[in-house]
Amino acid sequence: MKRLPLRQAFTLIEPGPVVLVTTNDGEKDNVMTISWTMVVDFTPVFAITTGPWNHSYAALARSRQCVIAIPTVDLLDRVVGVGTCSGANTDKFAKFGLTPAKAKHVKAPLIEECWANIECKVIDIVKKHAIVVLEGVAAYVDGSRKERRTIHAIGDGTFVVDGRRLDRRRRMRTKIPPGV
Amino acid sequence: MKRLPLRQAFTLIEPGPVVLVTTNDGEKDNVMTISWTMVVDFTPVFAITTGPWNHSYAALARSRQCVIAIPTVDLLDRVVGVGTCSGANTDKFAKFGLTPAKAKHVKAPLIEECWANIECKVIDIVKKHAIVVLEGVAAYVDGSRKERRTIHAIGDGTFVVDGRRLDRRRRMRTKIPPGV
Repeated sequence: MKRLPLRQAFTLIEPGPVVLVTTNDGEKDNVMTISWTMVVDFTPVFAITTGPWNHSYAALARSRQCVIAIPTVDLLDRVVGVGTCSGANTDKFAKFGLTPAKAKHVKAPLIEECWANIECKVIDIVKKHAIVVLEGVAAYVDGSRKERRTIHAIGDGTFVVDGRRLDRRRRMRTKIPPGV
Repeated sequence: MKRLPLRQAFTLIEPGPVVLVTTNDGEKDNVMTISWTMVVDFTPVFAITTGPWNHSYAALARSRQCVIAIPTVDLLDRVVGVGTCSGANTDKFAKFGLTPAKAKHVKAPLIEECWANIECKVIDIVKKHAIVVLEGVAAYVDGSRKERRTIHAIGDGTFVVDGRRLDRRRRMRTKIPPGV
C-alpha cells in the first residue's frame, strides 16, 4: 500500500462507501462494519455514528484510535459477515480471512485486503448523539488493485455498487481544495 | 410524490448520495448542495456538516427547519450549479429550473424535480464541529420516476453514479429494523 497525501483522504469517505473500522483494545484487534460516516473537514476530520451497543466502541473510546478501511465490491460478503457477528465472541479477522497490517501512528491495524486505509485518532465523542469525531493522521491506497468499486449500503439489506464516473472538475474548480 | 413511511427514510441517506438542502428564511427559499451527510438514527435522525460559511446556514439555524432533497444523475449539472454559486446573490430555484413545492411540516420547500424529499427539523447544532443534527418528520418519493440512480461526490470534482444493486437481505435480516 502506498501513502496517499492526507489532504486527499477525505475523498475516500465523501462518496459514502460502507467502511470497516478496526480497533485494538491493548490485547486484540477487532473490526466492525459502518455505513454511518461523514466528512466534517478537509484536513481531514470524519464523524462516525457508533456507541456502546457495538462491541468495538469500548476499545475505540478507551484507545482513542482506529483505522477506517475501505473495502471494494469483491469483499461484500466479508463486509456483511463482519457486520452481522460480534467481536465479543468472534475473532473476525480469522473468521473472514482479513489480514491485519501494522499501522504507523495507531495500534489498530490496517486491513491488507482493503483498497484504502486511514489511520485515525479520536478527537471528540459527542455522547448525546453517539457521534465519534476522528482526525485522519495517515492514509494509504493499494495502487496495484484492479477492483476499486466501493459499495454503498441502502440499509434494507441491499447494496449499490459504484457505477460510472462523471467528470465536472472544470466547473467545480472553485470548490476543490489545493492538492486534491 | 407519494409518502414514504418515515421508518424507511434513513435508506435515502445511508448510501451517501449528494443531496440538496432547502431552507426558507421567512422571505425567500434557498438551496445548497451538500455531500457531508450521515444517518445518526433509524427514527430517522441525520447529521449534516455546514456552518456560517454557507449562505443557507443563517436560515437553517434561525428557522430550525429544512428539506433534504435527493437528486438523481439527470440533475447532476444543476446540482453542480447550485453548489458553485451563492444564494446571497442568486435565486437558485429560478436559475437552475428547480420547482419549489409546499411541504407539510416545514416552510422550506420540497423540490419537485428530485426523486425523494425529507422534511426535517433541526434538533441540535454541535457548533464545535459545525454538525447540524436533523430529525426527519415526513418523507416522499416520486414513484413515477424512471431514473433513480443517485450520484456520489468524490470531492475532487468527479462523481460516481449508482451502478448495480446486490441483495444480501437474507444474511442481513438480523440488522434490518422492522418495516424497512
